[in-house]
Amino acid sequence: MELPAEVEFREEGPREGFQIEPRQYPLADRVRLVEALAETGLRHIQVASFVSPKAVPQMADSEQLFAALNKRPGVTYSALWLNEKGFLRALATPGVDVRARLAFYASDAFARRNNGCSAEEMAARQQGWMALYAEHGLRVETMTVLAAFGCNFEGDVPPARSVAAARAAEALCRAQGYGVPKILLADTMGWANPVAVKRLVGAVREAVPTARVGLHLHDTRGLGAANMLAGLQMGVDLFDSSVAGLGGCPFSAPGDVTAAGNICTEDMVFMCHEMGIATGVDLEALLEAARLAESIIGRRLNGHLLRAGSLARFRAARALAAQA
Amino acid sequence: MELPAEVEFREEGPREGFQIEPRQYPLADRVRLVEALAETGLRHIQVASFVSPKAVPQMADSEQLFAALNKRPGVTYSALWLNEKGFLRALATPGVDVRARLAFYASDAFARRNNGCSAEEMAARQQGWMALYAEHGLRVETMTVLAAFGCNFEGDVPPARSVAAARAAEALCRAQGYGVPKILLADTMGWANPVAVKRLVGAVREAVPTARVGLHLHDTRGLGAANMLAGLQMGVDLFDSSVAGLGGCPFSAPGDVTAAGNICTEDMVFMCHEMGIATGVDLEALLEAARLAESIIGRRLNGHLLRAGSLARFRAARALAAQA
Repeated sequence: MELPAEVEFREEGPREGFQIEPRQYPLADRVRLVEALAETGLRHIQVASFVSPKAVPQMADSEQLFAALNKRPGVTYSALWLNEKGFLRALATPGVDVRARLAFYASDAFARRNNGCSAEEMAARQQGWMALYAEHGLRVETMTVLAAFGCNFEGDVPPARSVAAARAAEALCRAQGYGVPKILLADTMGWANPVAVKRLVGAVREAVPTARVGLHLHDTRGLGAANMLAGLQMGVDLFDSSVAGLGGCPFSAPGDVTAAGNICTEDMVFMCHEMGIATGVDLEALLEAARLAESIIGRRLNGHLLRAGSLARFRAARALAAQA
Repeated sequence: MELPAEVEFREEGPREGFQIEPRQYPLADRVRLVEALAETGLRHIQVASFVSPKAVPQMADSEQLFAALNKRPGVTYSALWLNEKGFLRALATPGVDVRARLAFYASDAFARRNNGCSAEEMAARQQGWMALYAEHGLRVETMTVLAAFGCNFEGDVPPARSVAAARAAEALCRAQGYGVPKILLADTMGWANPVAVKRLVGAVREAVPTARVGLHLHDTRGLGAANMLAGLQMGVDLFDSSVAGLGGCPFSAPGDVTAAGNICTEDMVFMCHEMGIATGVDLEALLEAARLAESIIGRRLNGHLLRAGSLARFRAARALAAQA
């Protein structure tokens, strides 16, 4: 299959990054990072989550964060929630671009740890989410399968679980008269490999051919770029990523926040551009935002271009020399 | 194309890693690392280089290093050289598994910096190398094209340069009655991308169909794993790599030895195993060697499994739970 001509990145650094850190960062710094990201051409930024402030105190001030944000037209500023209460908080918060989402777990053990219920219960709860969305005039935009490739608490996860989840989401949407628009397969704990990516994307697409399939990849074990390439080769054109490689799942490499998190937006934008795939993102501006993220976090982050830079300056020097 | 069933890694961490560090590490530590690597199933370890002690003082004691080494049968302990003098030093050093190599530059500017001569002069010198090898009864085993994808001092490098170098090496070998066995394409400064890898491997293989094509990849800009995947998809089954991601080219990210170096052996072995590709390497033993490398260098290295571990412990726990 040919590589897609254009790829969309959904930036999750502000949410993934700051929620995994042991301390809470100043609101002004987080606002500054989101605003810098919005200047890069990224069109979708997940700003914060509305989850239990007891479980994730770092995200307790999501309302204030949205209130403080200067929003740029054309950019979606979204938020994450894991239950109806979180959704209602998001809905009640001015400035949140509420995008209705469904969430399924491919691992029961991970559902219990991350959501406090079984995978089956979570699937059942999605009916309630659907009803709530319909009540507020919202259509589902995405469904996510968490731990779609494997789970630290359950081992390898068969593709059939994601396929079943995708079918369930599709059925819920069809009952409302539309198909599920986007299916995000999440490698939450870094278990994916390129062969598994191709297999799972193929299986899910076969099950729900009308949905756009996206990938939420983590670079936990160094395969993030290869897994993304495998996705691209399957025609996937939607990727979640984090500026500077911020974030990660607290269960991926417990106790080590310096472990690699999500795939790094600027490194992956670079990969796309080098292969002739458009992203709509200004790579050098994004690199500036990555440097800002690193200065806010206050330690070395995992992005590669942060250290080595892109190739632009070398090509510019070359072009200059050729003119002379 | 199908992925290869088996892949060979040539470990270059001991040479790449210690030569880029500003200080010289104790001989005993370097010996310990090489000996640990030899216990992992890796069959080829590049131990040191015989280059100018003025330019690379870190490698000034290569003779002593080989003398101190307890060698394991079945493992090749090789060395690098960049001129005839270096070759003769290697040849005179007991314990070096001398593997005759040719070296070509795809970038003239880089040849001048790295070898003190033009790319053309370097190509011409290969005749002298050939004569010297023949004189000592050695057949060429590999030829390497340095800066095959691009160069910080010259910009993008057209595939035709590598093709010309491959043809030249082939002609030199044919004149001695054999074909060049292995052609290594080196992404010395981190300019490769998956599309470029496929294009270049295809072009070189077309030019010299009898040679085994290998890749020497750097992870400078985070595309190492994706570039290796692209190589695997072209059937490439020979990769240079460095334990813990040690090393890198001093010209890749000048002044920053913490920038990513070569592709990381244990991460890439992990990728192969996860995709069902055999490597002959014991991943957990290799991870131990990576931890040793990190403790010797004395700072955080770039390998991902160093932080997150492999998936073995999770699968073992799962298997245990299933038995209970």
